Amino acid sequence: MKSILIFGAGRSSHMLIQYLTEHARQFRWKIIVADSGEKYKGENAAVDYRKVDVTDEPARDMEVSEADLVISMLPARFHPLVALSCVKFSKNLFTASYESKELKAFEDEVNQKGLFFLNECGLDPGLDHMSAMKLIDRIKFEGHDLQSFESFTGGLVAPESDSNPWHYKFSWNPRNVVLAGQDGPAKFIQNGKYKYIPYNRLFRRTELIDIENYGLFEGYANRDSLKYIEKYNLQGIPTIYRGTLRRPGFCRAWNVFVQLGATDDSYEMENTENMTHREFINSFLYYHPTDSVELKLYHYMHIDQDSDIIQKLKWLGIFSKTKIGLKKATPAQIMEHILKHKWQLLPGEKDMVVMWHKFTYREKNTGNPMQLTSSLVVTGENDIHTAMAKTVGLPLAVAVKLFLTGKINLTGMHIPTDRLIYEPVLAELEQQGIGFLEKLEEEKPEE
Amino acid sequence: MKSILIFGAGRSSHMLIQYLTEHARQFRWKIIVADSGEKYKGENAAVDYRKVDVTDEPARDMEVSEADLVISMLPARFHPLVALSCVKFSKNLFTASYESKELKAFEDEVNQKGLFFLNECGLDPGLDHMSAMKLIDRIKFEGHDLQSFESFTGGLVAPESDSNPWHYKFSWNPRNVVLAGQDGPAKFIQNGKYKYIPYNRLFRRTELIDIENYGLFEGYANRDSLKYIEKYNLQGIPTIYRGTLRRPGFCRAWNVFVQLGATDDSYEMENTENMTHREFINSFLYYHPTDSVELKLYHYMHIDQDSDIIQKLKWLGIFSKTKIGLKKATPAQIMEHILKHKWQLLPGEKDMVVMWHKFTYREKNTGNPMQLTSSLVVTGENDIHTAMAKTVGLPLAVAVKLFLTGKINLTGMHIPTDRLIYEPVLAELEQQGIGFLEKLEEEKPEE
Repeated sequence: MKSILIFGAGRSSHMLIQYLTEHARQFRWKIIVADSGEKYKGENAAVDYRKVDVTDEPARDMEVSEADLVISMLPARFHPLVALSCVKFSKNLFTASYESKELKAFEDEVNQKGLFFLNECGLDPGLDHMSAMKLIDRIKFEGHDLQSFESFTGGLVAPESDSNPWHYKFSWNPRNVVLAGQDGPAKFIQNGKYKYIPYNRLFRRTELIDIENYGLFEGYANRDSLKYIEKYNLQGIPTIYRGTLRRPGFCRAWNVFVQLGATDDSYEMENTENMTHREFINSFLYYHPTDSVELKLYHYMHIDQDSDIIQKLKWLGIFSKTKIGLKKATPAQIMEHILKHKWQLLPGEKDMVVMWHKFTYREKNTGNPMQLTSSLVVTGENDIHTAMAKTVGLPLAVAVKLFLTGKINLTGMHIPTDRLIYEPVLAELEQQGIGFLEKLEEEKPEE
Repeated sequence: MKSILIFGAGRSSHMLIQYLTEHARQFRWKIIVADSGEKYKGENAAVDYRKVDVTDEPARDMEVSEADLVISMLPARFHPLVALSCVKFSKNLFTASYESKELKAFEDEVNQKGLFFLNECGLDPGLDHMSAMKLIDRIKFEGHDLQSFESFTGGLVAPESDSNPWHYKFSWNPRNVVLAGQDGPAKFIQNGKYKYIPYNRLFRRTELIDIENYGLFEGYANRDSLKYIEKYNLQGIPTIYRGTLRRPGFCRAWNVFVQLGATDDSYEMENTENMTHREFINSFLYYHPTDSVELKLYHYMHIDQDSDIIQKLKWLGIFSKTKIGLKKATPAQIMEHILKHKWQLLPGEKDMVVMWHKFTYREKNTGNPMQLTSSLVVTGENDIHTAMAKTVGLPLAVAVKLFLTGKINLTGMHIPTDRLIYEPVLAELEQQGIGFLEKLEEEKPEE
């Protein structure tokens, strides 16, 4: 009997735990969930729940020492603690988070002990790596000349639950949505030229993307695309661009908050406890003895009277006299507070995850310019069984299953860009309803 | 015989040293200048020069222990080291820099030992405090009801040496000019409302200021004005705003670089060694197969073909194919590199320091709205004897003289907002040609 220890029982662990427990009897697995919460809310009877504070080393060590394999679904900053215990007791570790410097530091020990550490095996990072590498390896294998790679991912609301003018609801951490784009400029290459977009321009340089059966989306650049050149073995590629998807119109309206300074998380505002939504917005506008906050905002941001931006802003209630009620809050914290109620996924509502890759290449024999796209759309079942939880949790769960059943037979520190990982994982995910739709056509020149 | 030890022999120390040596014989002072440089470039024969690395504690201690009074003109980060030695050997300390937390930490010891530490006694901070407090104390003493306080300072080029379309040349650290405004939002109060301006809007929310005999200037908000409420005892004042002065048109054109992301100091660009000025600008613009860098920039920034911004940008040579030649540089470092040649004060050229305060109040008896302005313009003699060196160095030099001659008779940790300091210092500065021009008139309502 193999024992699987899962740190973290948050919302994104849900589908991971469900998949593993469904296979537990067949493969004789024991599933242990460790979390700092009083109770495991999933209340899955097949799970053995332990209350563990991951920063408590003896408690953490005890759990890890008894497990055969460890999964960390905790916030990324805790992974190094889990990794420390895994190395100490020679246990394999799986996460859906970026392979940070802190994790990378364990590589020598992982190799020496013949362990298997797999990071970046969720949605983004995770599915994006696997689905992209599958096509990159194929195009290279067939001998074509790769010209460009663009890739976009978005966590959105499903059309049937789309009931607001932003066409957006939260399916993951609201704070990260408010802070998106603030950790440095977006970097990418286009036709051999390095390009940099600062935060204040990020939401104005978007691209329109049409995904069959799902309509139009817009994408904005996602921080450092350059590091994927090495990650995906794309040295010398003229164009590489990664982005985030929203529905058209989102970015233009969100940009109003960026320009106001309302997404700034670097300072606390004065007197936020007694401030209203309206006063919050007014604090970023020039003083005028008689003009309304609305008028000042539209004028300051050059918003036309009939712009759809106005509808979006009003719908959020930013002009209301509702009290914020937060003590010593930053602008970003106030934005999150306003948005999390408005963009909440209500009981029964469905989210949607969209991933889209586009490759262009010159065909090996004819030299014709070809365009290969690959798209994935996953719709959630409801506000608990979300597409987000499914696409983050299942790739990791499937990788764990394949490893424990000997289908992935590797040691060392990996991310799933390796064919020996992505091939079996993608095959199993397709059976679970996570399949990509490919389309190959001759590239049309822009008109 | 009293011994005055001056740490730092940089350009801004020049006038300070000159003033002190001029008075050295009369008051029987010995002037020692300590710097890490091989040689003291001022080559003032009345000065005893010592090569000292301020981070070398025994060397620093030796110098401090032999002095009667210490002045630090080093970069602000070194002041705490100097303060440490001063406290150790019970010496008084004078600086022209902000009273940082690190300096404030010495307050108890300074009090216990009966020492006198004076910080913020240069131009800004320094002259701004003294000239503002003089008027604030007078208005309060006369019993009027203070409504607003605005204050602007600028280090500019004198009209007779103004030979470029930006109407600006460097008279202090170029790096600080490139990074201006990036250390948090501008904060102020206007008519009782807290206001915040983020960096990306800072150079678009300017105010026009007319200074008699010197023409028009524009001012942009200078980080945290709120802290001056306490500093100047202005609790309850409806409006307080501090800003930086430039000539009209500067901010609109500078904003182009801000919007591009060309002033960012947070990351290194790729391949900067072989990059040209033109490629630097292009890296912030969208890709286009045929459009020129100029055309793309004007379009991206909505700059009209006949805008004066174009002349300013072209004059800087940002479209040239000159190589930058810096290794691993940030955008801000590249900007500084381009600007420091173009905005250099050439031999014989003159700089100009401008300071302007505006107070509005209701007259005690009539209730009439009054406006009191106070302005200072100092023109440099040449590129060495600058107005900047004079206005930074003389307030400190004068304070030292007044202290050593018993005219300032205080102990403890101070900034010159105290009447016992600003009154004698301002009186002496006026004799040195640093005098403010006051103007009192009835406030005119805006049309």
